[in-house]
Amino acid sequence: MAELKSDIQIARAADKKQIQEIGAKIGIPTEHLLPYGHDKAKVSAEFIKEKRGGKDGKLILVTAINPTPAGEGKTTTTVGLGDGLNRIGKKAIVCIREASLGPNFGIKGGAAGGGYAQVVPMEDMNLHFTGDFHAITTAHNLLSALIDNHIYWGNEQNIDTRRVAWRRVMDMNDRALREIICSLGGVANGYPREAGFDITVASEVMAILCLATDLKDLEKRLGDIIIAYRRDKSPVYARDIKADGAMTVLLKDAMQPNLVQTLENNPAFVHGGPFANIAHGCNSVVATTTALKLADYVVTEAGFGADLGAEKFFDIKCRKAGLKPAAAVIVATVRAMKMNGGVKKEDLGKENVEAVKKGCANLGRHIENVKQFGVPAVVAINHFTTDTEAEIQAMKDFVAAQGAEAILCKHWAKGSEGIEELAHKVVQIAESGASQFSPLYPDDMKLFDKIDTIVKRIYRGSEAIADKAVRDQLKAWEDAGYGNLPVCMAKTQYSFSTDPGLRGAPTGHVVPVREVRLSAGAGFVVAICGEIMTMPGLPKVPSSEKIFLNDAGYIEGLF
Amino acid sequence: MAELKSDIQIARAADKKQIQEIGAKIGIPTEHLLPYGHDKAKVSAEFIKEKRGGKDGKLILVTAINPTPAGEGKTTTTVGLGDGLNRIGKKAIVCIREASLGPNFGIKGGAAGGGYAQVVPMEDMNLHFTGDFHAITTAHNLLSALIDNHIYWGNEQNIDTRRVAWRRVMDMNDRALREIICSLGGVANGYPREAGFDITVASEVMAILCLATDLKDLEKRLGDIIIAYRRDKSPVYARDIKADGAMTVLLKDAMQPNLVQTLENNPAFVHGGPFANIAHGCNSVVATTTALKLADYVVTEAGFGADLGAEKFFDIKCRKAGLKPAAAVIVATVRAMKMNGGVKKEDLGKENVEAVKKGCANLGRHIENVKQFGVPAVVAINHFTTDTEAEIQAMKDFVAAQGAEAILCKHWAKGSEGIEELAHKVVQIAESGASQFSPLYPDDMKLFDKIDTIVKRIYRGSEAIADKAVRDQLKAWEDAGYGNLPVCMAKTQYSFSTDPGLRGAPTGHVVPVREVRLSAGAGFVVAICGEIMTMPGLPKVPSSEKIFLNDAGYIEGLF
Repeated sequence: MAELKSDIQIARAADKKQIQEIGAKIGIPTEHLLPYGHDKAKVSAEFIKEKRGGKDGKLILVTAINPTPAGEGKTTTTVGLGDGLNRIGKKAIVCIREASLGPNFGIKGGAAGGGYAQVVPMEDMNLHFTGDFHAITTAHNLLSALIDNHIYWGNEQNIDTRRVAWRRVMDMNDRALREIICSLGGVANGYPREAGFDITVASEVMAILCLATDLKDLEKRLGDIIIAYRRDKSPVYARDIKADGAMTVLLKDAMQPNLVQTLENNPAFVHGGPFANIAHGCNSVVATTTALKLADYVVTEAGFGADLGAEKFFDIKCRKAGLKPAAAVIVATVRAMKMNGGVKKEDLGKENVEAVKKGCANLGRHIENVKQFGVPAVVAINHFTTDTEAEIQAMKDFVAAQGAEAILCKHWAKGSEGIEELAHKVVQIAESGASQFSPLYPDDMKLFDKIDTIVKRIYRGSEAIADKAVRDQLKAWEDAGYGNLPVCMAKTQYSFSTDPGLRGAPTGHVVPVREVRLSAGAGFVVAICGEIMTMPGLPKVPSSEKIFLNDAGYIEGLF
Repeated sequence: MAELKSDIQIARAADKKQIQEIGAKIGIPTEHLLPYGHDKAKVSAEFIKEKRGGKDGKLILVTAINPTPAGEGKTTTTVGLGDGLNRIGKKAIVCIREASLGPNFGIKGGAAGGGYAQVVPMEDMNLHFTGDFHAITTAHNLLSALIDNHIYWGNEQNIDTRRVAWRRVMDMNDRALREIICSLGGVANGYPREAGFDITVASEVMAILCLATDLKDLEKRLGDIIIAYRRDKSPVYARDIKADGAMTVLLKDAMQPNLVQTLENNPAFVHGGPFANIAHGCNSVVATTTALKLADYVVTEAGFGADLGAEKFFDIKCRKAGLKPAAAVIVATVRAMKMNGGVKKEDLGKENVEAVKKGCANLGRHIENVKQFGVPAVVAINHFTTDTEAEIQAMKDFVAAQGAEAILCKHWAKGSEGIEELAHKVVQIAESGASQFSPLYPDDMKLFDKIDTIVKRIYRGSEAIADKAVRDQLKAWEDAGYGNLPVCMAKTQYSFSTDPGLRGAPTGHVVPVREVRLSAGAGFVVAICGEIMTMPGLPKVPSSEKIFLNDAGYIEGLF
């Protein structure tokens, strides 16, 4: 019966508790919860400060195989595991990312988890939520306006107007803004130049907000943003045009993590949402570190599959924030194994044990990879009703042969009851102290060698290649003192290679680095391998055409 | 002593009550207050619906003489009068506009009122507040994206791409976006065309939100927006590309009025903020009508001086929302009278009774004008410490000679205690039932005649003039069924004429209508007389350079 309800029906039927009650569960007093309606709140900066230096709970990463159209359910499993841990008597908090508003009007989207493992209020979380993304958009665009204004009034910093590196952003799928010429209309409007917009989640301000430890650190990082270069190639920083203070003011509230709840009334922090290609794809450091002070267990996720998401989580977020994950859960499904094993989407309903076995290669690679970081891994098989016993057993056997364990999880259909076994296993691993986390490469490795290390050890390619211009650029940044930064790989999420169609566990492929970008404020060098779209478009029939408020005041068509 | 404190110091020292306590004063139960932090809340749509059909309180408009650099204190007086009415035992609610965020980063701005007559929390109200303007920006830009997307995918509606009438918006002073070419970069990004951005407060969506009576009406009006014309000149509506439903969803929360408090813990609705030139410049109809159900007295204001603000309040807002104002307060200062009388700003500190008398002509004109709408007027002299007895007496004598009364008000320095006399006077007028409100012109007057009527009867010009093209356009709209709309005058706020330097009470001037625009969703025809800037720029040294968070977490430099 339960399976027949849609996510949104389940979410709307939720027996939500007042957010103050959820906060009380993890020791946040009412005065330190800044409510947004009755079911959302920000945790005050003062409270977060107070909790510094306390003991940390255990951090669990939920990651996944390479995504397929079959669906893996990473967020669903993150939420389910949080509920499962609470069910077995552990105080657990879920930490996930905020959703971008714009894309919901392109294709039917939304949701934060699914089935009986969801975070609510789903509608708000997929619309304006607590305004964090709007604040990021505004701070970003203030900087953009200040740059053109600086040049307009005489260009004291001698910005090379051909080398303005800072674009504008909007939380909207608007291809018409990808490439524009701005400042037309004569002297009162400035000098025309090429410019453009990215979607807000691609803003470096988003990445900065998600990596900053507090408002002081935020301000410093905002000041470090490279906005342009001079004729002598020297960088011009946001600090040089005195933008960092005002940007910080605009982000003051957005820096405070958002508390909501799961369907089972357990606490969830939903905060930040950087792109998982040109940025690191994890929720905010502030949310994660705060949650660790308040709970025995913090369950968080990283974008895309483990090759991109977990690698960045470990090498960027954990490295920089000093986090030590205690275990990793790799989410996989029978259906996705079958797709990796060559089955077409329309044939997924049929049993095919051989295809499962074949597709497991992709999963096996991710298990090995996670172990390279010293983090013990367990596989969560996110159950679909079409899965057969034999298929499930094939996956379990495969994972056992890798020296790990695969556990069938039915949280989608049953909530925490369906994921108890995984919760117990995670506790066992975490409490064993088996994790010996360390990043993949040291800070002082050369930038290109860092890229090459990821290509060889994680993607199992033969090598990373790049034009001389790209290598020279990396060398120049090393000379300028940026050599100690981690790298952030921007490549297709669908394959270990740069070919999205190449599923399974390819080896020996060459990974070409087309372009490199320096996110000096966020603190990483982006290596772009393939086409990365930073401003999506809308489809021929955008989902907005079907979105409306029904007579009962509910939103139709968004989910 | 008190006078030595700055507005922000006074605001920060405020003994704010929890917003639930403020709501309780006017009968809003906690469950119908959607809190945003502890000191702001939205009033739920359900509660507003419940209150429909109840008895209305009395509506008081606060308007002013033509603004001068000397400052009039219209919002300060609105807030002060609200407090004053509460002080003398009336249940009163203040209804004012929300502030635009962007301009605060250009010139030091902010504040909602001043001295001891302010609305708090001032910082939030000048930044993101409850996100209403961000929602408006998003809804507006969704429509923009959908238009270009519609053309991109084949232009089923046959939009004449030269006649796209809908721009984009941003809540930022960014002159570089005034005129752009978008959709560059080849076939994947669309077809290049000229486009541009206005500041969010200039969006028709803002005007619509402020005039809509509920979500259904909002959706209807959004659908009525003219986004472009076809080759045959027929209009294409937002409804034609199915944008109205999704835009309504984005504005669902923003339609609910925001409740905050005055320094004296009295309720204030702060909701909506349309431009006072190309739009009508009043807070939302929903806020005003809801407040009328909850209070004996509702004190509201309109943008700029009475020639623009009060005229639009009466002819657009009251006409359309069926409001019957009981009295109008015209705010004036001794200093402004002196400036109107020819005194320079640097000499305002010196007594000059003759200049006061001379400058009173401007005030006299506004008194006469307000009376033309059948609304009794009283003058509030907003006291400055430099005002002399003789100057004040000169103003009082002048107003008395006009058959009205001028009352000295010291709310800035003393709060409600300083404005009791005005409060009593307002009650006396309102309870006398003297108001016989009716708009200046009937709905069925020709559009150009409406403009000409305002020019002759309010501005006391000789006539309105316009090119044949403008007159033909008005005629075409009349033929298309828009002839019954009111007109919205966009002209300088500094003079009754179109010359900003012409103070006092000029007569006989010609008012040229340069351009007309149809805001079909908002429901008015805009007559543009002179240059109207819909996207401001930043100054050479923008205030953002001095804005930062201090170590105590307070915002410096914004006020």
